[in-house]
Amino acid sequence: MARWEPGARERLVVAAVDLFTEQGYDATTVAQIAERAGVTKSTFFRHFADKRELLVAGQETLSQLLAEGIAEAPTGATPLEAVAAGLVRASSAMGALNRDLGPRLKAAVAASTELQERDALKTVSLAAAMKTALVARGVPDPTAALAGELGVLAFKRSFAEWSEGDRDAGEGRATLALAALDELRAASASLG
Amino acid sequence: MARWEPGARERLVVAAVDLFTEQGYDATTVAQIAERAGVTKSTFFRHFADKRELLVAGQETLSQLLAEGIAEAPTGATPLEAVAAGLVRASSAMGALNRDLGPRLKAAVAASTELQERDALKTVSLAAAMKTALVARGVPDPTAALAGELGVLAFKRSFAEWSEGDRDAGEGRATLALAALDELRAASASLG
Repeated sequence: MARWEPGARERLVVAAVDLFTEQGYDATTVAQIAERAGVTKSTFFRHFADKRELLVAGQETLSQLLAEGIAEAPTGATPLEAVAAGLVRASSAMGALNRDLGPRLKAAVAASTELQERDALKTVSLAAAMKTALVARGVPDPTAALAGELGVLAFKRSFAEWSEGDRDAGEGRATLALAALDELRAASASLG
Repeated sequence: MARWEPGARERLVVAAVDLFTEQGYDATTVAQIAERAGVTKSTFFRHFADKRELLVAGQETLSQLLAEGIAEAPTGATPLEAVAAGLVRASSAMGALNRDLGPRLKAAVAASTELQERDALKTVSLAAAMKTALVARGVPDPTAALAGELGVLAFKRSFAEWSEGDRDAGEGRATLALAALDELRAASASLG
């Protein structure tokens, strides 16, 4: 077995997104991804179960951060204030790599039904993680489910804005996420 | 090629759900499903691309009915009133077969990551279909996206209630869907 290599996980994600962009998801093999990243196939499989899992690298961390932020919001916080705390906590984990890969990952997802399925499960899982954390705070089920959906919409909309937007604008990930949540809160008043 | 067989599609769905329940999704082959349904493998493939697609039989019809109901709602209807019209239209297509298979399909999905992914894509697709239909009515984007999520939550919650509930209670699918949407509308007032 190869020794542990710092940064191998990140290099694998970058190599995979590069290859998905160049030649498509279906045509890309695990062997090619490992070679491009300069690691062995067994190193690949220590980090990811298969090439599809590269898409959602960090999903569990993200769910955990969202849930922690919600759990640790002040006792009197409303459901959406707790969701806001979750979004702020999760934003702290999104760095330059996420931002750079975002648009290319989005293109790869748009071109592959298999990746769309995996991406959809990620979306549903993040909403479920937020709902569970809200229920644990005593928020009743329909409200918790709805607040979780608002949280995911805010997360996704602000991620797209952040990763596709002007790098010099200086608006942080957390600021954009909170603005998106505010916009959705305002929209909830005009549902009729 | 075999001639067209009336009811083959429904028989394939029932056979697949029976086999998923008896022996698990992974262990079930297309050949076994076709045999149980009393059709050839080529008949299977005229109806479904693969065994996973059996899970979402009717997804496109459902998306279309939701969108049609939304499109044909009265001009002055609010976003949620339009979603309600979509839910009523879609409910008309859900018959005894959907009701009977519901709980077993749910168990099969719970036991298979592959089916969870496909089911998640169905959820995301239904929300997107409703959002698109609302945007076409002139509903601005964040409100349309949110109303689409409420529509999917109402659809899923009421489907579970309907398919798992008392068959003699007599509450129709549409009534349950509208009640679920009302509950979510009420919940949206307590998001904070």
